Amino acid sequence: MSATHIEPVSNVVWHDTTVTRLMREQLNGHRAAAVWFTGLSGSGKSTIGHLVEEQLHRHGCRTYTLDGDNVRHGLCSDLGFSERDRTENIRRIAEMVQLFLDAGIITLTAFISPLRMHRELVQRLVGPDRFVEIHCACPLEVCEQRDVKGLYRRARAGEIREFTGISAPYEPPVAPDLVLHTHRVPIEECAEQVVGRLRERGVLECGRQRA
Amino acid sequence: MSATHIEPVSNVVWHDTTVTRLMREQLNGHRAAAVWFTGLSGSGKSTIGHLVEEQLHRHGCRTYTLDGDNVRHGLCSDLGFSERDRTENIRRIAEMVQLFLDAGIITLTAFISPLRMHRELVQRLVGPDRFVEIHCACPLEVCEQRDVKGLYRRARAGEIREFTGISAPYEPPVAPDLVLHTHRVPIEECAEQVVGRLRERGVLECGRQRA
Repeated sequence: MSATHIEPVSNVVWHDTTVTRLMREQLNGHRAAAVWFTGLSGSGKSTIGHLVEEQLHRHGCRTYTLDGDNVRHGLCSDLGFSERDRTENIRRIAEMVQLFLDAGIITLTAFISPLRMHRELVQRLVGPDRFVEIHCACPLEVCEQRDVKGLYRRARAGEIREFTGISAPYEPPVAPDLVLHTHRVPIEECAEQVVGRLRERGVLECGRQRA
Repeated sequence: MSATHIEPVSNVVWHDTTVTRLMREQLNGHRAAAVWFTGLSGSGKSTIGHLVEEQLHRHGCRTYTLDGDNVRHGLCSDLGFSERDRTENIRRIAEMVQLFLDAGIITLTAFISPLRMHRELVQRLVGPDRFVEIHCACPLEVCEQRDVKGLYRRARAGEIREFTGISAPYEPPVAPDLVLHTHRVPIEECAEQVVGRLRERGVLECGRQRA
């Protein structure tokens, strides 16, 4: 019988077999959560985030860090810094975090995210039980003194408009999971505090026990 | 000594410790790759994709499936179906796949993706060595007969404009990794073929051996 004579498979079952988040969490041995770092430019979000990620990875956790480097140049490369674009930027990040959580990943983010309503938007979308808010609370003077990327100098010179802390507001979290005083606590200790908080929140518990 | 008197940590090293894709692949025991299903609506992309994902998950692989359900309603909810919006839709999907690959995940996608240039865009971005193209080659008549979502009926009635296969073109891949004849091969067998192809492409090899 030639291929052209084979009848179409008529009894195909067209349901979608789906691997769920719970199944992925069980495979990973930990829960999926968004670890949201917020704070001024230069407050240590990215540095501490990557330190935390390294520790989690060493413990066998599945992790990923989203920050300006891998988001602003890619997924959000069409967006500027107008209020509308900033909102759309956060919306896309929130949706992406949501997908990463669905994939079972501990997802760390390092964005200034100065507005409370933006962070609340993310929290609503991913769910409060999966949202861990970390405030890198470093005084503006110290951030400006560090000025790792030279952005504060440019902002003071008027070359960057609406720069958080200089010409745009930063709204600190009302009830963050953790406040890191990165100007007087060594970053290694800050990272330890974050991992400890994740443990307290049950993120590092094995999915099997919660199933 | 009270906290307020503690001097700022001045010798902080502000480098970013980074967990790399290779480190994640080594932890996972397999490589990251994009498994891109393309084909008409109703050709079996999503069903076979989920079957493949289930098999990979059972073997301990880290996987995720992106499709219309979790992308169009979320990340791309602001986009319509104009040519410009379709291009932006694919661009965002490509960038997102890129992030998932960076996270070490075998990322399956189920989008009609009718245009060759769009699929080539994804391939260029993620890199040809990480792009596995699967063509769900099911004749239009069979897809239309199945009409799982009732879309063909609506397209024939003129209720949906520019519907692939009816009023918009589908450009089949020139050199796909695999052609699945989903109208005469049972879906379980199709899924087996995909897994076999991933094995041939070295995706399922342990990262440790390739490090």
